[in-house]
Amino acid sequence: MSGTVQLTVTALDGIPDVEPGADLAALLIAAIERQQLAPRRHDVLVVTQKIVSKAEGRYLDLARLEPSARARQLAEITGKDARLVEAVLSQADEVLRAKRNVLIVATRAGLVIANAGIDQSNLAAQDHGRRVLLLPQDADASAERLRQRLEAHFQCDMGLLISDSAGRAWRCGTVGIAIGAAGVPSLWDRRGEQDLAGRPL
Amino acid sequence: MSGTVQLTVTALDGIPDVEPGADLAALLIAAIERQQLAPRRHDVLVVTQKIVSKAEGRYLDLARLEPSARARQLAEITGKDARLVEAVLSQADEVLRAKRNVLIVATRAGLVIANAGIDQSNLAAQDHGRRVLLLPQDADASAERLRQRLEAHFQCDMGLLISDSAGRAWRCGTVGIAIGAAGVPSLWDRRGEQDLAGRPL
Repeated sequence: MSGTVQLTVTALDGIPDVEPGADLAALLIAAIERQQLAPRRHDVLVVTQKIVSKAEGRYLDLARLEPSARARQLAEITGKDARLVEAVLSQADEVLRAKRNVLIVATRAGLVIANAGIDQSNLAAQDHGRRVLLLPQDADASAERLRQRLEAHFQCDMGLLISDSAGRAWRCGTVGIAIGAAGVPSLWDRRGEQDLAGRPL
Repeated sequence: MSGTVQLTVTALDGIPDVEPGADLAALLIAAIERQQLAPRRHDVLVVTQKIVSKAEGRYLDLARLEPSARARQLAEITGKDARLVEAVLSQADEVLRAKRNVLIVATRAGLVIANAGIDQSNLAAQDHGRRVLLLPQDADASAERLRQRLEAHFQCDMGLLISDSAGRAWRCGTVGIAIGAAGVPSLWDRRGEQDLAGRPL
């Protein structure tokens, strides 16, 4: 199979529960080495938003939030907790859709996503659901910091993506999307190239 | 690395130009065998919409189309060829957005996609751009037919996806999406399961 173009995706095992202030790069490096993986030039590490946000301590205590009039109005429309809506608005530039069970906003970072990407899934339950987790403040910067640590350790050029799960307009379910990237072009501009028949792309 | 969960994606080489009426399953099987790949149970073959549509002869000759008043009106708004718009409308249940350079419809098959997925990229140029290529009439059925042929040949349960490239609302560029599937669940319903902290999904 020499000459065959292949891409292999390997799941990284044994990432512990990540606490605020944790050295996430060190946790990732340890997991990679425990699994005896040897990153090679241009390998890309995909890290979920959840553990990046946890390491960065992006928690918000809902009990400390005072919902604005706007938040209470959107809570009425969506049926969501007004304090959660307040948290969403704190991250949002613009509300794009609000209806029963749906609140889609454009975040300050430019992402269009339900609830500004804020959720409680896989958070420890001992605070009785008072805390929510925000997206990283600047996911590209978070990716870049992790990338630099990994490159320095493994002594090779690497890429790093921060992934989140998101719904897609007009389709059911959620899929993984990249919300931050470093060392990897996030958009490949092929305008000016030609298709098989010579038509310009 | 035993116990490691991995997914390997292998590019299939040497698919020839596909003509209407071609036995696409036979072409795929030949390419797989030339590359000495041995499909195993639950391997998934991803086939581009383009060659499925070509094999199914889903060409439309724009010169034979008479644009309706609605098509001419939308051509005016979008700046697109009125005959192309007529072709799009022939595949559409509903026009969702029409503005300069943009025509997004819901197709009869339920897909929300620009120009009903109709395009000319990678079509032979000898007809001077008169022909366009439609999506398969029923991509799930096309996938199922191909899957059955591959399973019978390789004597193992396989999955088959038909992929297309599509833009995403609010994001730049295009990504691959599945427009047809067989032998693979296209949506994984995890409602009722629990997250790490025991919260119901």
